[in-house]
Amino acid sequence: MRNMEQNLRTPGPIPLPPAVREAQGQQMVDHRGSQFAEMLDDISSGIGGLIGAPDGALLLTGSGSGALEAAVVNTLSPGDRVLSVNIGSFGDRFAKIAAVYGAEVTTFAAEWGTSADPAALAEHLAATDPYRAVLITHNETSTGVVNPLAELLASVRAGPGEPLTLVDGISGLGAIPFDMEMGVDLVVSASQKAWNASPGIGIAALSARGWEATETARMPRFYWDLREARDWSAKGQTPWTPAITVLYGLRVGVGALVAEGRDRTWARHAAMAGAVATGMEALGLQLVVASRDRSATVTAAWIPDGLDWGPFNAAMRARGLVIAGGQGKWTGKILRFGHMGDVGIEEMADAISRMGQVLVEFGHPIDARAAADATRAAFEAAAAPA
Amino acid sequence: MRNMEQNLRTPGPIPLPPAVREAQGQQMVDHRGSQFAEMLDDISSGIGGLIGAPDGALLLTGSGSGALEAAVVNTLSPGDRVLSVNIGSFGDRFAKIAAVYGAEVTTFAAEWGTSADPAALAEHLAATDPYRAVLITHNETSTGVVNPLAELLASVRAGPGEPLTLVDGISGLGAIPFDMEMGVDLVVSASQKAWNASPGIGIAALSARGWEATETARMPRFYWDLREARDWSAKGQTPWTPAITVLYGLRVGVGALVAEGRDRTWARHAAMAGAVATGMEALGLQLVVASRDRSATVTAAWIPDGLDWGPFNAAMRARGLVIAGGQGKWTGKILRFGHMGDVGIEEMADAISRMGQVLVEFGHPIDARAAADATRAAFEAAAAPA
Repeated sequence: MRNMEQNLRTPGPIPLPPAVREAQGQQMVDHRGSQFAEMLDDISSGIGGLIGAPDGALLLTGSGSGALEAAVVNTLSPGDRVLSVNIGSFGDRFAKIAAVYGAEVTTFAAEWGTSADPAALAEHLAATDPYRAVLITHNETSTGVVNPLAELLASVRAGPGEPLTLVDGISGLGAIPFDMEMGVDLVVSASQKAWNASPGIGIAALSARGWEATETARMPRFYWDLREARDWSAKGQTPWTPAITVLYGLRVGVGALVAEGRDRTWARHAAMAGAVATGMEALGLQLVVASRDRSATVTAAWIPDGLDWGPFNAAMRARGLVIAGGQGKWTGKILRFGHMGDVGIEEMADAISRMGQVLVEFGHPIDARAAADATRAAFEAAAAPA
Repeated sequence: MRNMEQNLRTPGPIPLPPAVREAQGQQMVDHRGSQFAEMLDDISSGIGGLIGAPDGALLLTGSGSGALEAAVVNTLSPGDRVLSVNIGSFGDRFAKIAAVYGAEVTTFAAEWGTSADPAALAEHLAATDPYRAVLITHNETSTGVVNPLAELLASVRAGPGEPLTLVDGISGLGAIPFDMEMGVDLVVSASQKAWNASPGIGIAALSARGWEATETARMPRFYWDLREARDWSAKGQTPWTPAITVLYGLRVGVGALVAEGRDRTWARHAAMAGAVATGMEALGLQLVVASRDRSATVTAAWIPDGLDWGPFNAAMRARGLVIAGGQGKWTGKILRFGHMGDVGIEEMADAISRMGQVLVEFGHPIDARAAADATRAAFEAAAAPA
C-alpha cells in the first residue's frame, strides 16, 4: 500500500499510481505542437485497442457526464423516440439528458440492485414502435450492478428498427469485458475510472453507424461536437484547449493497461471484486447485488440495521477509509466500495480491516483481521492458475 | 528562468510555476468530502475577490469554450435577439455558439486588430430594436486587442432594452482591469490563462440579473447548467466529478494572485506587455495593434515580408521558443506571443533574444542582444516607482 494514511475506495476518483502523479507534474506544452500530438495519439490508440475501436478513442475535456451529453446530442434529434434501459441513478441521468434535449424517452427499468433482463427487453422492443436509440448503462455505479451488455445488445439488434445503441461505459470500460463489436454504436467513459488517471477527460468511441448518425442528428451542439473532435484528432489536436495535465497522467495510466493486456486486466478486476465480496460478507455485511449481476469495479452492501450512515461514515473517514454512500432513494441505505484501476489486494484487505474495526467500535461482533485474511485468501484462490 | 530548454510563449497554456506543478502531483481525494470542499471554496472566493464577484466564481470542468457555451445556454432562449461585438475569431466563436442554440445573432464588428468603438456601439444600439443580450470579448486572443470594456458596457446600459451583458474574459480576466461592477451580467474565463494553472477548468461569475436570466432561459442545458453548479457549490461540491488535479494547481495559482493583489498583477502585466512591444519593435517587427488597444496578455506582430511562417516557426521551435501563429484569415500573417500568468522579464528577454537569433538566421539585419536589453530596460522603466 502506497498511502496508508488514506485508503480512497470511492468508485472514482481512484487513487493514482505514483507514475501517474509524477507525470501530472510535467510542464505545459503547446497543444498545437508535435509533443502533444504524439501524446494524444498514444492515448487514443491505446484505449481504442482495449475497447475494439480501431480508429481510436476521442478525448474530450470534461466529466463523464459531459461525455454522456456528447453521446446524446451527437446522434439524436428532438422528438426521437429513445428507450432508456435504466437500472439506477446513472441510467436516470442518461435518460434525463436525452429528455432535456427534446427526445421522447421511454424507460425500461429494472429493480435497483438487479440487471436488465435481455429477454424482457426483447419482448418490450417487439411489442413497441421502433426506437431511434437505446441507452444502456454497462456498469451502474449507483447500485454496483453490471448489465449483461452483449445479451442486451443482441436483443436490440433482434428487435425492430435497428435502433442506435448508446452505451454508458463510464465506470466499467477498461475493467470489464467489452468490445465495440458487441454491437455498440457509441460508448463513453471517463479518465478517473478504470483508466488509472485523474478526472477531467471524457472518452468516446463510435461505430460507422454512430458516425452516420452524427451527420443527421439535429440536437444543438458546439462544445461536445464529436465531428470536431474527430477532425482535430486526425491532426493530433483537440478543437478546444484540453486538460493537458490530466492527459499526461492518462497516457501513463492507459500505457499500464495496454502493457497488462485486457484479458488480464478484466481477470484481475473480477478477482478483486470477488475478494471484496468475500471480505464484506466476512464482516457480516449483506451484499446488495446477487453474484451474477455484481460489478467488477464497485461493490455495494446494505448498511446494517441500527447503524446510521452519517456517524458510520465519519468513523471510517477518521480511520482514513473513504468510501461512498448510496445515491437517490438509496441514500443512507447502502455503502459503495470501489476497486477499479491500479488496485492491489493489500489495499482491499486494509480497507476491509479498517471497516471491520469501525463496525467493532459500533458494537458489531465481528473479527476485522479474519475478514481481511479472507479477502486475501479469496483473491489468491481466484488468481491462482487453474 | 526555470526552463531554458523551452520558452512557452503561447497565449495559453502558460508555463506553470513550480509550486503549481508540485501541487498537481497530489493524490486524489473524494470530491464529495471536506478536503475538496475547502479547496473549492478557497479557489472560488479567491477568484471572486479578484473580479468583484462577492459570491465567488463557479468552477466548471471543461475548456474555456465550454464556459462560453455555458454563458449562452444559461441566459438565452431560442429566437432571442443577440448582438455580438466581434473583433476577432474568439468573438466569432461566441457568436457561433449563440447561433447554434437558436439565437438570432447580429454582428457588430470592428476591423481585426482594432477594438470596438463605444460611441459607434451606442449609435447602433440606439438605432435598432432592443437586444436581449450583448456578447463582448474583453481580450481578443486572436488579434492581441483589448476592448474598452467599461466604456462598451456603458454604451449598452445607455441603450434601449437593458440587454444582458455576457463577457468572454477568458484570456484577460485576472491580468487586466476588470470588475463585475462595470456592469457585467456574466463573465467566463479559463484556468490556463492568467490564473497560473493548467487547462481544464472553466470559470464563471454572474450578477443578480444574470442569475434571474438563468431562471427564464429556455436553451437546453444539462452539463453546463450553472444553477446546478451554484447549488452544489454551496455544499462545497460540483455536480459532476471535477478535474481535481487541475484544481490542485489552480488553488496555488489563484493564491499567488490573491497574495500579489489585483492592482499589482494588472500593473505587472501592463509593464510586461510594454516591454515585449519594445523588444519586438527593436527586432524590427511591426506590431499589429495600436498602443491604445494593445492587450496586456498577448502581443501580435506582422510576419515580415518575405518570411514564411512555417519555416520561421520551425526554426523558433528548434531554438526552444514556442509562440502561436495567426488564426482564421490571419493564418500565416501574424505571430502571437503570450505574456500572462507568472511571467518574469527574464523569460521575455530570453524569448525576444531567441526570436532575434532566428531572424538573423533568416537574413534580417538586427541585433538580438540589443533587443533583449531593450525589453529589460522598458520593463524596469515601467516598474520603477514614479
